[in-house]
Amino acid sequence: MNFNRIKNRFSKDELHDLGFSEKLTGSNRSINNDGSFNVKRVGSSTTNIQDVYNSLITMSWGKFGIIVLLWFILINSFFAIIYLMLGTEYLNGAHGREVLEQFLDCFFFSAQTLSTVGYGHLSPSNYWMSGVAAFECLLGLLGFALATGLLYGRFSRPGAKVLFSKNIIIAPYKDGLGLMFRIVNGRKTQLIETELKVIYSIMVDEEGRKIRRYFDLKLERAKVSFFPMSWTVVHPVDEKSILSGYTQEQLLGAEMEILISVKAFDEIYSQTVYSRHSYVHHDLVWGARFVPMISQQNGHSVLSLDLLHEYEKTELPQLIIEEASSD
Amino acid sequence: MNFNRIKNRFSKDELHDLGFSEKLTGSNRSINNDGSFNVKRVGSSTTNIQDVYNSLITMSWGKFGIIVLLWFILINSFFAIIYLMLGTEYLNGAHGREVLEQFLDCFFFSAQTLSTVGYGHLSPSNYWMSGVAAFECLLGLLGFALATGLLYGRFSRPGAKVLFSKNIIIAPYKDGLGLMFRIVNGRKTQLIETELKVIYSIMVDEEGRKIRRYFDLKLERAKVSFFPMSWTVVHPVDEKSILSGYTQEQLLGAEMEILISVKAFDEIYSQTVYSRHSYVHHDLVWGARFVPMISQQNGHSVLSLDLLHEYEKTELPQLIIEEASSD
Amino acid sequence: MNFNRIKNRFSKDELHDLGFSEKLTGSNRSINNDGSFNVKRVGSSTTNIQDVYNSLITMSWGKFGIIVLLWFILINSFFAIIYLMLGTEYLNGAHGREVLEQFLDCFFFSAQTLSTVGYGHLSPSNYWMSGVAAFECLLGLLGFALATGLLYGRFSRPGAKVLFSKNIIIAPYKDGLGLMFRIVNGRKTQLIETELKVIYSIMVDEEGRKIRRYFDLKLERAKVSFFPMSWTVVHPVDEKSILSGYTQEQLLGAEMEILISVKAFDEIYSQTVYSRHSYVHHDLVWGARFVPMISQQNGHSVLSLDLLHEYEKTELPQLIIEEASSD
Amino acid sequence: MNFNRIKNRFSKDELHDLGFSEKLTGSNRSINNDGSFNVKRVGSSTTNIQDVYNSLITMSWGKFGIIVLLWFILINSFFAIIYLMLGTEYLNGAHGREVLEQFLDCFFFSAQTLSTVGYGHLSPSNYWMSGVAAFECLLGLLGFALATGLLYGRFSRPGAKVLFSKNIIIAPYKDGLGLMFRIVNGRKTQLIETELKVIYSIMVDEEGRKIRRYFDLKLERAKVSFFPMSWTVVHPVDEKSILSGYTQEQLLGAEMEILISVKAFDEIYSQTVYSRHSYVHHDLVWGARFVPMISQQNGHSVLSLDLLHEYEKTELPQLIIEEASSD
Repeated sequence: MNFNRIKNRFSKDELHDLGFSEKLTGSNRSINNDGSFNVKRVGSSTTNIQDVYNSLITMSWGKFGIIVLLWFILINSFFAIIYLMLGTEYLNGAHGREVLEQFLDCFFFSAQTLSTVGYGHLSPSNYWMSGVAAFECLLGLLGFALATGLLYGRFSRPGAKVLFSKNIIIAPYKDGLGLMFRIVNGRKTQLIETELKVIYSIMVDEEGRKIRRYFDLKLERAKVSFFPMSWTVVHPVDEKSILSGYTQEQLLGAEMEILISVKAFDEIYSQTVYSRHSYVHHDLVWGARFVPMISQQNGHSVLSLDLLHEYEKTELPQLIIEEASSD
Repeated sequence: MNFNRIKNRFSKDELHDLGFSEKLTGSNRSINNDGSFNVKRVGSSTTNIQDVYNSLITMSWGKFGIIVLLWFILINSFFAIIYLMLGTEYLNGAHGREVLEQFLDCFFFSAQTLSTVGYGHLSPSNYWMSGVAAFECLLGLLGFALATGLLYGRFSRPGAKVLFSKNIIIAPYKDGLGLMFRIVNGRKTQLIETELKVIYSIMVDEEGRKIRRYFDLKLERAKVSFFPMSWTVVHPVDEKSILSGYTQEQLLGAEMEILISVKAFDEIYSQTVYSRHSYVHHDLVWGARFVPMISQQNGHSVLSLDLLHEYEKTELPQLIIEEASSD
Repeated sequence: MNFNRIKNRFSKDELHDLGFSEKLTGSNRSINNDGSFNVKRVGSSTTNIQDVYNSLITMSWGKFGIIVLLWFILINSFFAIIYLMLGTEYLNGAHGREVLEQFLDCFFFSAQTLSTVGYGHLSPSNYWMSGVAAFECLLGLLGFALATGLLYGRFSRPGAKVLFSKNIIIAPYKDGLGLMFRIVNGRKTQLIETELKVIYSIMVDEEGRKIRRYFDLKLERAKVSFFPMSWTVVHPVDEKSILSGYTQEQLLGAEMEILISVKAFDEIYSQTVYSRHSYVHHDLVWGARFVPMISQQNGHSVLSLDLLHEYEKTELPQLIIEEASSD
Repeated sequence: MNFNRIKNRFSKDELHDLGFSEKLTGSNRSINNDGSFNVKRVGSSTTNIQDVYNSLITMSWGKFGIIVLLWFILINSFFAIIYLMLGTEYLNGAHGREVLEQFLDCFFFSAQTLSTVGYGHLSPSNYWMSGVAAFECLLGLLGFALATGLLYGRFSRPGAKVLFSKNIIIAPYKDGLGLMFRIVNGRKTQLIETELKVIYSIMVDEEGRKIRRYFDLKLERAKVSFFPMSWTVVHPVDEKSILSGYTQEQLLGAEMEILISVKAFDEIYSQTVYSRHSYVHHDLVWGARFVPMISQQNGHSVLSLDLLHEYEKTELPQLIIEEASSD
């Protein structure tokens, strides 16, 4: 591949504002399939309480439930041991004889205190016991307050879940070709003022050094006011496109990556949300058309989400291959 | 109607950024009266926990109350059955003899545990009972935390409730005509930096295929800094307007739809809010004037919300009909 | 005053995007001193639950406290009456003989249930009583959840409290005059990207009808990146200003109002906030200078908030009065 | 240093929109190392409830914990004294004889009421006692609601923690020099659309008066779409730069300050966040290069946070010193 030609033609167009280093070498992709960045952080990262909060907010519900349950058991065990040390004779209603039974009495007294259920069949009978229990109540209330905040935070985080078609295709477009992928809103919320940015990244040889370079791909339409349906995003592969004049092999050989950033306004949460995706060479299909997702039934427009990834193979006009072979 | 003329004159003006497909056919409206999109989603939509939250946040208060009550009864019944299986002899204060009575004892013990009221006239007397009760307490606290978040979420969702006049009218405007509708802030909050976008949509014949096309309508004023009063939105039907030169029948016959998108900043919630509306052919009144909503009383400006929809019939200048008939 | 001259010179400059009606007549001010709009809404305003929330969020703390207390008493009285009707003989621990005593027993049982404290010295002894109590618990939890949301909402509402100098002054500025007022951040939060818009409004005679018109006043500086200090906002009264060429009497006589809108980003709440103010004729001081609020002490800049309103009288250059008298 | 030359060359470039006063004299820095402004506010600042909230939200966790604990003790002591005055004979289960014991009985009854644990081994036995306890319950619930809000507020405050390299360096850049510092995202959240503004501030002599002036420094790149890695911010010291033509001594001698403002969008919190920093003369290193923080391991890009501050001394091209000496 004539990397110099790319360099000369597009050196002015190259993007300097992406935030990825040119020093990225090898075939690493920049953005993982789930939208996270392919960067590992090491060293004295200051893991502070805000990072703990972020983890608790973003982890799965199963994991979150287990952590809450373990904490509940751990804190109750901790206080049970304190009550045990103070002596179960100062705990009204505790009849346990053996240590395990006494521990269980203390454990359930603690649980009833921490959760503020306080049946009263177990109750503190001296001042030390009452004092520790009062402190535990306070902790319980604060812990509960924390849980309230965490649960609210988990739920109320707007999350644009833009679904991307599994493949990016080269399809006939107008009199030439188009690079196309398809997106759909995976949530039932409405996305407003949706904007797309698509970036093509390749490794180029420059004075013997392989360097990763990034180029903006112009889109037929980069913004939609509403986004209730599917959106087939098209980069026309015309003479202005950096992709024009190359064959399938050349596009594939260049360790290419297509990075996509979606920005939208979520109506339910009244907040701006972002979504990212990237396609690499084995996601590219040469010569295909997406199957329409929208049909008409009883006066409604119907959007079939199942068809998002569906395409059918098609012939491509020969122009691009020819031009490329004369290169 | 001379669709080709429309096509030729306005092909450059057509909007490509609306997010509706050209393939929309038939007389379906794009936006329903309540501002939702007239699109039905089918297929493997991933209904996840965030969508459940959205439903709970946006459903009516009556429905929300019933769901909460049913959950409370369901969960208590579930735990009541567990306590029943553990045996009511391990529940201090439960005197029920028959199964139903025993179930009710267990049910109310569960209710007192889940809500952490814990009177104590019913209390667990063995460790299994205590363990299940402790777990139920924890669930109760988390459920309560959830309810807190949901209630806060329901209340704190900013919701611009822009009220639209029932009709869109053709009224005398300056030396010609104007397409007008009227809006007012339906909430007591203040809307700041309010912006409007009005789109005219028609079905046109194109090479035998009926296609829906969208055109921006220029407004006399598309943004107001403050919005404490009513706002009569005017599209002047002058020579630059796509609507000029057509009679009532032609405008009506084209399965037209006028889509409106309102964007504003809600001062109380400090968030950007959106509102949508659409008018279809039977909402159009030819030859009318809106009755003023603002009057002066004791040095105050008074806004009469009752008058929002009121108009009075009026004569229109003849110019537009003539021009149309000479077409 | 030569209103026609104003009309001719500035008809193009007039603001159409303010959202106030031209039909505002008389000497009503548009914006009250507290930043609210001087508009009264009447008619079928749909007072819905969101408006109730808004009221509860924005009312004073004293009023909020009283409403919460009254609700607590009201709801407990309501449930007390139900328990009374079910019979205090089904309430363990209730020893009241007379109706008032029985009511108080029921009232405090209700209070202990609603707040989930549930001491247990009062407890339900039949299933009806238990059922109502269980329902009251649920209500109590939800009410508490509501209170949590309201309190959080009250606290977390960002509120730019921009303090405005009591007076707006005409001061010497460069080689001419300037219309000046002074603002300072009244909160301890940081305001970032603070923007100002100043509008001059007068009543003009137009074909016998008095109409209120609005004009933008150009500012020496309309935006500051940071706002840690005081900001003296200056409109230079030069030949480009709509105010040039008028005497004090003419400016005063025109039932003028100067409207100010401040937009800023609040760092603590991470939200955009707005503030409004207006000056009317009796706030204008002719010939004065603001006393500096910033001084240097021990290497710190010190901002004296007490000096915000302070000015000292000064001589004005004669130019403007002369020009006006030759008019 | 030729201050007049600076004045003449850059009078048009000077920033008027920073919000700092020109009257700032002496060597005070404008922005402290932690990003706060070096301004002290005195006078009748209206410390209102929102400012109290802000303090509680922004103080350290340790301090917050102690305040909560003290409040808990204080309020319980207050109610304990009321119960004591009402008489412990009306408190079932209180067996204390001496005043201290009676106080402790009342204190723990209060704690059990405030926290709604309500074991019931202590319970009110007359109506006055019940009434005060009911009121305390209500207070407890509201206090808890408050704590919930505060804890949520503390956690959910987005806080961009941009880490700045300890030094700002003059390094070789292209064919000349560059002023460089390095930043990295100190949190695990993603920052999107990160923008930088860098301002150079010096004291200049103007008609015998020392005045602080502010100049914008043009950056090689002022915005990055993503910010997953380190970002070396470069101001090229070329002929267009206000810094060109000066030696180390001149730059140092001018009581210079370099102010940095970072704006970004935090993906987890879906909010815009700001960060500030400033460098003063003793932070400047003349002739150095930053050690790269990014390396490649097993197909991942690895970011070593430990290397943020690391630089190595290097030779500088002579051009700038020469030009300066010929000045």
